[in-house]
Amino acid sequence: MTISLSDSDVRAASDMKRIIQSVEEVLVEEYDGKILMPPRSNLFNEGKFLRVMPVYLTRSGYFGYKSFHGSLENGVRYIIVLIRESDGELLAILDAAYLTAVRTGATSGVATKYMAPEGKASVGLIGSGLEAETNLAAISAVRPISRVKVFSRNEERRAAFAKRMTKELGIEVVPASTAEEAVAETSIVIIATNTGHGGAVAYQGKWIEPGQHIVSIGSTSPFLREVDSDTFSNSTKIIFDAPPDQIFDESGDLMAISGELKQRLLSVTTLPEIVALNNFTRTDNDVTLFKSVGSAAQDIISAKAIFDVAIQRGLGRDIGVLAERKIF
Amino acid sequence: MTISLSDSDVRAASDMKRIIQSVEEVLVEEYDGKILMPPRSNLFNEGKFLRVMPVYLTRSGYFGYKSFHGSLENGVRYIIVLIRESDGELLAILDAAYLTAVRTGATSGVATKYMAPEGKASVGLIGSGLEAETNLAAISAVRPISRVKVFSRNEERRAAFAKRMTKELGIEVVPASTAEEAVAETSIVIIATNTGHGGAVAYQGKWIEPGQHIVSIGSTSPFLREVDSDTFSNSTKIIFDAPPDQIFDESGDLMAISGELKQRLLSVTTLPEIVALNNFTRTDNDVTLFKSVGSAAQDIISAKAIFDVAIQRGLGRDIGVLAERKIF
Repeated sequence: MTISLSDSDVRAASDMKRIIQSVEEVLVEEYDGKILMPPRSNLFNEGKFLRVMPVYLTRSGYFGYKSFHGSLENGVRYIIVLIRESDGELLAILDAAYLTAVRTGATSGVATKYMAPEGKASVGLIGSGLEAETNLAAISAVRPISRVKVFSRNEERRAAFAKRMTKELGIEVVPASTAEEAVAETSIVIIATNTGHGGAVAYQGKWIEPGQHIVSIGSTSPFLREVDSDTFSNSTKIIFDAPPDQIFDESGDLMAISGELKQRLLSVTTLPEIVALNNFTRTDNDVTLFKSVGSAAQDIISAKAIFDVAIQRGLGRDIGVLAERKIF
Repeated sequence: MTISLSDSDVRAASDMKRIIQSVEEVLVEEYDGKILMPPRSNLFNEGKFLRVMPVYLTRSGYFGYKSFHGSLENGVRYIIVLIRESDGELLAILDAAYLTAVRTGATSGVATKYMAPEGKASVGLIGSGLEAETNLAAISAVRPISRVKVFSRNEERRAAFAKRMTKELGIEVVPASTAEEAVAETSIVIIATNTGHGGAVAYQGKWIEPGQHIVSIGSTSPFLREVDSDTFSNSTKIIFDAPPDQIFDESGDLMAISGELKQRLLSVTTLPEIVALNNFTRTDNDVTLFKSVGSAAQDIISAKAIFDVAIQRGLGRDIGVLAERKIF
């Protein structure tokens, strides 16, 4: 049977703890060289684009691809195709709009579990969109949280976000009137914005305090900025979720960096390594930074975790099975 | 609205004349440089594979991709994702198993329209599978046919094929007991087999008669053979449906060729050019050969032609619409 899962099906079937665990496992699979990810295919025409990211998880036993398409002016739509390796069955075609946000959160959750100070965390959050929501939910799944201060440029939106997330997560979430105020005297900083179109940044490295753990997930295209160069130079330990040269290709934040700092960043350790080897350590004064651009492996394994819950709960529409042709 | 089309929906919505016309138009679009086709993504693991072929038809205004996956031992399954450029709407997700065969036929139909002798044709057909069926149907859509002789190795299958196609196409189709007998004294030869795994060929160039038009569509992977080298050296005019270097990469028949013949074949004209410029000519003694490996452009435009009929006739299942995210 093949099912299609709509965005609301995916939301209903998203179990953050389960997705975090799946992403953690797939990062080890990646470190062990068991994942095949060919170069992404990118098509651009007059401001419109299509990107296709195939991936083969040889240990997990799933393959497929995520695609997303849209334009700078309009919205972006996401599709994931999930196939079981053993018999080639197409398991599901998923709307991956929410899924992309939830897996980005899950990946931040894994990074934070390994990198952030132990114990109760106070969180400074910049951004009040979907990614801010899923990242906060993920952080709260890996650390007990005392309080969250949230800033976004629209006062009404940040107030509504604070109210909604207080209720959803059962923790105190309060609005802050500036970004600087939001991140002051916190132990974990999350920057999850889409404010940087045109080069403006939402977060400045001069606000960093010793001992903080910083998560930046918003600059995932050459067109976007989120944090300044000081954010990188003022961090003592930096982890990327992809090879550094790929991050430099994809993130506007990194593209803005050159010279000595770039050389340092090109040898940054990646998340798969610190998860696989469990070798990340921090002192009280370290400032740790996790910068994420996502990967098709994270997408596909999250799709699998969501698919499993959807099947258990009878979500989605049965769309029949693909015909098979013997061509060899 | 987005619909999913099963293999039987696709069969019901396939109108050969309409698909031939669509393919003809997309070949001109390709010649005019209006199509973006990045390198295909290929993933292989222990005999299993996934191939993804994205394409952007900038003049037609559609984009998407075909993927196919499977293994050498088992069957192959095909998916096409069809997206409208203007608003980014996902129009349909199609089972592309039959679709792939019908578009291969349609492309052969276009080539035959431009390349084959005018007037009534007698056809020699090698192969009795799905591709043999769709190619014969396509040829019969562009030329009146007096008689078809069909050979395939299984006597029962070729007899059943002859009977079925006689009824379906309303033309005389008779079984032949050898491949050589099937193609003797015919004006159009179609080789549409999957018999060449391991290096055996189904057709030999020494059987060629002056004035024939030959269509070979079966060797579309490095693992497959269908025709021998003499088939190429004994043809006076050869047309490929893709750039020669791509054909040499993908077709086992071409991979077996080297030296002077390879040099000659590397400068072969392509189908988009002869359709766009309508500059193909033949004499009574010319032997013309069309060798096809297919393209994502042919796939997507065929999917669009099938989608249009499906919508008119209310075929397929409504699977809702994708969520849109404003991320820029």
